[in-house]
Amino acid sequence: MHSHAVLLMSCPDQKGITAAVTDFVFKRGGNIVDAAQHADEEAGAFFMRIEWELSGFAISPQDIAGEFRPLAERFGMSWEIYLTGAPVKTAVFVSRQLHCLHDLLFRYKAGQLPHARISLIVSNHHDAEPLARQWGIDFLHTPVFPDTKPQAEAAQLAALHEKGVELVVLARYHQILTEEFIRHYPQRIINIHHSFLPAFVGGDPYSRAHRKGVKLIGATSHYVIPALDEGPIIEQDTARISHRHAVKDLVEIGQDLERVVLYRAVRWHLERKILSYANKTVIFG
Amino acid sequence: MHSHAVLLMSCPDQKGITAAVTDFVFKRGGNIVDAAQHADEEAGAFFMRIEWELSGFAISPQDIAGEFRPLAERFGMSWEIYLTGAPVKTAVFVSRQLHCLHDLLFRYKAGQLPHARISLIVSNHHDAEPLARQWGIDFLHTPVFPDTKPQAEAAQLAALHEKGVELVVLARYHQILTEEFIRHYPQRIINIHHSFLPAFVGGDPYSRAHRKGVKLIGATSHYVIPALDEGPIIEQDTARISHRHAVKDLVEIGQDLERVVLYRAVRWHLERKILSYANKTVIFG
Amino acid sequence: MHSHAVLLMSCPDQKGITAAVTDFVFKRGGNIVDAAQHADEEAGAFFMRIEWELSGFAISPQDIAGEFRPLAERFGMSWEIYLTGAPVKTAVFVSRQLHCLHDLLFRYKAGQLPHARISLIVSNHHDAEPLARQWGIDFLHTPVFPDTKPQAEAAQLAALHEKGVELVVLARYHQILTEEFIRHYPQRIINIHHSFLPAFVGGDPYSRAHRKGVKLIGATSHYVIPALDEGPIIEQDTARISHRHAVKDLVEIGQDLERVVLYRAVRWHLERKILSYANKTVIFG
Amino acid sequence: MHSHAVLLMSCPDQKGITAAVTDFVFKRGGNIVDAAQHADEEAGAFFMRIEWELSGFAISPQDIAGEFRPLAERFGMSWEIYLTGAPVKTAVFVSRQLHCLHDLLFRYKAGQLPHARISLIVSNHHDAEPLARQWGIDFLHTPVFPDTKPQAEAAQLAALHEKGVELVVLARYHQILTEEFIRHYPQRIINIHHSFLPAFVGGDPYSRAHRKGVKLIGATSHYVIPALDEGPIIEQDTARISHRHAVKDLVEIGQDLERVVLYRAVRWHLERKILSYANKTVIFG
Repeated sequence: MHSHAVLLMSCPDQKGITAAVTDFVFKRGGNIVDAAQHADEEAGAFFMRIEWELSGFAISPQDIAGEFRPLAERFGMSWEIYLTGAPVKTAVFVSRQLHCLHDLLFRYKAGQLPHARISLIVSNHHDAEPLARQWGIDFLHTPVFPDTKPQAEAAQLAALHEKGVELVVLARYHQILTEEFIRHYPQRIINIHHSFLPAFVGGDPYSRAHRKGVKLIGATSHYVIPALDEGPIIEQDTARISHRHAVKDLVEIGQDLERVVLYRAVRWHLERKILSYANKTVIFG
Repeated sequence: MHSHAVLLMSCPDQKGITAAVTDFVFKRGGNIVDAAQHADEEAGAFFMRIEWELSGFAISPQDIAGEFRPLAERFGMSWEIYLTGAPVKTAVFVSRQLHCLHDLLFRYKAGQLPHARISLIVSNHHDAEPLARQWGIDFLHTPVFPDTKPQAEAAQLAALHEKGVELVVLARYHQILTEEFIRHYPQRIINIHHSFLPAFVGGDPYSRAHRKGVKLIGATSHYVIPALDEGPIIEQDTARISHRHAVKDLVEIGQDLERVVLYRAVRWHLERKILSYANKTVIFG
Repeated sequence: MHSHAVLLMSCPDQKGITAAVTDFVFKRGGNIVDAAQHADEEAGAFFMRIEWELSGFAISPQDIAGEFRPLAERFGMSWEIYLTGAPVKTAVFVSRQLHCLHDLLFRYKAGQLPHARISLIVSNHHDAEPLARQWGIDFLHTPVFPDTKPQAEAAQLAALHEKGVELVVLARYHQILTEEFIRHYPQRIINIHHSFLPAFVGGDPYSRAHRKGVKLIGATSHYVIPALDEGPIIEQDTARISHRHAVKDLVEIGQDLERVVLYRAVRWHLERKILSYANKTVIFG
Repeated sequence: MHSHAVLLMSCPDQKGITAAVTDFVFKRGGNIVDAAQHADEEAGAFFMRIEWELSGFAISPQDIAGEFRPLAERFGMSWEIYLTGAPVKTAVFVSRQLHCLHDLLFRYKAGQLPHARISLIVSNHHDAEPLARQWGIDFLHTPVFPDTKPQAEAAQLAALHEKGVELVVLARYHQILTEEFIRHYPQRIINIHHSFLPAFVGGDPYSRAHRKGVKLIGATSHYVIPALDEGPIIEQDTARISHRHAVKDLVEIGQDLERVVLYRAVRWHLERKILSYANKTVIFG
């Protein structure tokens, strides 16, 4: 049962877009519950998010896109319409460090991720298995070694497709996904990287931050693209450290950042608040 | 010369507001450059800010309000329309501590307050006089003693009116304005208070914060109403302190907060981004 | 098995304290692993924390205090010597909201509270019982109604004493402890309050923060004294909110603050880094 | 007139250092006003800062180093002894953006840099000249073009030496100093870089941050070494931005960071709170 429709769109900046889109909704009896827009003057681009109630809307959900298309074409839009209400099937990938998974599951149970249904936990290790069992979530163990990655990814993709998973969350999954895998989930794989990107791309960022002597550490959530740690950044945060902190302290302080930075990204994605363009994101607040 | 119009409005939440307002602008040839809205479900209230270009708009600036009125009445709006382009005449009141004044003037010169014209500096002391002279801004000295406050305020109001001042900024002005004075500038006097309100209302907040042993100090900018330090909060920020900081350190750290917290409030006011209701503010980002 | 000794002391500021104390340790073969001091010039007070290895120390642990006493008396010190190594038996009190308990238990298991042994979970509700069972920690259910508080507290104290509990953590325990109860655990009950104290003392701080229209919310951990929410503040933090956040959003954002602000306080207490004086705390970093 | 002595030292971690150093001071009648230490277990290194009053100290200031040397050699220390009281002659280098210079001068006048005497402002442009004149500080204009850099640096060094400058502050000086120049001021040139290093080393960091789509921007103060933007980091801070901010907004928000991040570094240097080792800094709080 869908309750709201959300339109996310971008197009060249031009006169009359806001009015045309709001008009489209209003004329068909839709009650607009949220509308936000952004114009990037430097890029000459316009972005909009509009959300309306489906109750009382003159068109049935499956026909909205078709009816909207002429307007979209007139303005040269890139666009997507999402229907909210039905939870988004989500898989969480994790290796041995469980703090992000633990945090997401607690929030999920507490009702902080109302738009998600966590259907599957995938890991190349067994550490997360008891947690999955305890929460009654299916667990898939796919060991990954250099020569078994293709089989592992095939097994993962099969499970994802079987369950109809629409969003993949890498909650400290320490394996690099292949381009082939990523192609199945464009802008639908969210990773947490334990540094303030673009600083410390790649492995072992806390040790490198310690060696460099930075005074703040960070965490970054982003969509996954084939280039490692280079996808559109969704959210970042930093925390103060000092010379008194050893690497293990950085790991601990950083984990507190990772938890919230990953959670916010997942939540905003599920609320259809994120629009990607030019390898960056617009986050509608 | 006005370039943009800004409508700020609030009304009971109901169907069709966004569409009706954007339609009003679009039908008359206005190019919407920014539109933002907010619905407070608990209060059943709706808020909107919409900004459009006057160039090409079918109605002349002085007639917009009249033409908009029927629509406003239909939805039961509280509303104001501002025309941007002509700078807002602004007076800054200060006592002996000049860090906020100094900061505002530097930003003003650097082009960070393009919508303001700082026309007058008012003080109950002489400390700010050289600064005013150096920047070529008129200075009014109005000493305030318990029995001379009425005369002081009369002189201040006379000067404000003579110069057509529309915004009063209290940049660490250590005198309490009378209700009578405030009535001349409703929602148009911005104060900086050197605490995280509602903690430490009134005098000497840094000493009281030190005595209390708080681990963060704050600053708050707000509109002035007759009840002391109780007006709608516009912006706040905090900074970490520790037991190692004496009161004078709190003063110094706090001044860095005061500068930016006051500046942001003044800037947002000038950009017509602040809407007040229920003794709170909506800040359109 | 104790491994380190920690001396925490305060006294009137005077010449020669640092040298006398370090000398006391060094002369007896103690290897100082950390020493920190602070002088509060306004109060004329001096504070010191010194930690040394017991291995190779000439005096046996139980005799250190006796041997140190003459020096302490010479300088007029308030002081305590702690022996680390043996974990501190800790009880966590909670009502229906479990986020802080959950967080503490996860960190405990992850090795982030190495100086604690969590021996007991106490609640006036049953919500936390499955969590206690799952982690293998004893659970005491003590319903509290206006007329049963004395019996409830008697049962709680009996259980605490039986288990040798030395630290009580109120992880969102929504009952006010009696002065009688508090007297059993001076400076050894840590509470988390869900506001930036001294703002919003007492009940329902998030609703009151929302009504007030503050732009940041906070959380405060403090030692419990008979005056409600007035004990020495240990740690605080704030997070930015906006008009877009309803009360339930404040609750959620605030919970992220509460978790870390409570955790830090518990950890610092266990590491013997907190010294209280004048209803404030010195936190040795 | 010197009032305090400050010893900054590092050495391999070993037993008895703290006691030996405090003893050295105490035996000669010195009143220790601050002592702090840090052991880096991973590196096996020990760091200490100790500050004592010279009044009543048995050795005259110029003889302290000689008397301390045997102790230093016994423990294999790298060390320096500073005498406070006489202000440190300081030069500020700047190009066309004056916000950091303006900020430092205001703080200097307000008494926030009591250990400095700002003796000279150096620039490759004329923009700062009126400010220098207004504050009564000597101004040196040294235009820098690719083929005139040697002459420019020679003129700068001559002026610095003539005035006895001991600290050089690069307050947005957009020229790269030669290795030869830097050799004259080892660990005594402080630069402000307008990014969160190691991200965005080199030119135009705000544009690159905007293009990358980061959600926070930063500023970093560091000692200058021949490798560009690679010297020991002294202080960093970050501020939140969003897709709504254009490059010019990043510049403006970043300037608020740069001001405080540079100021803190200069102040800590002057208070002799910074110890460098392994291309990092220990900041004694």
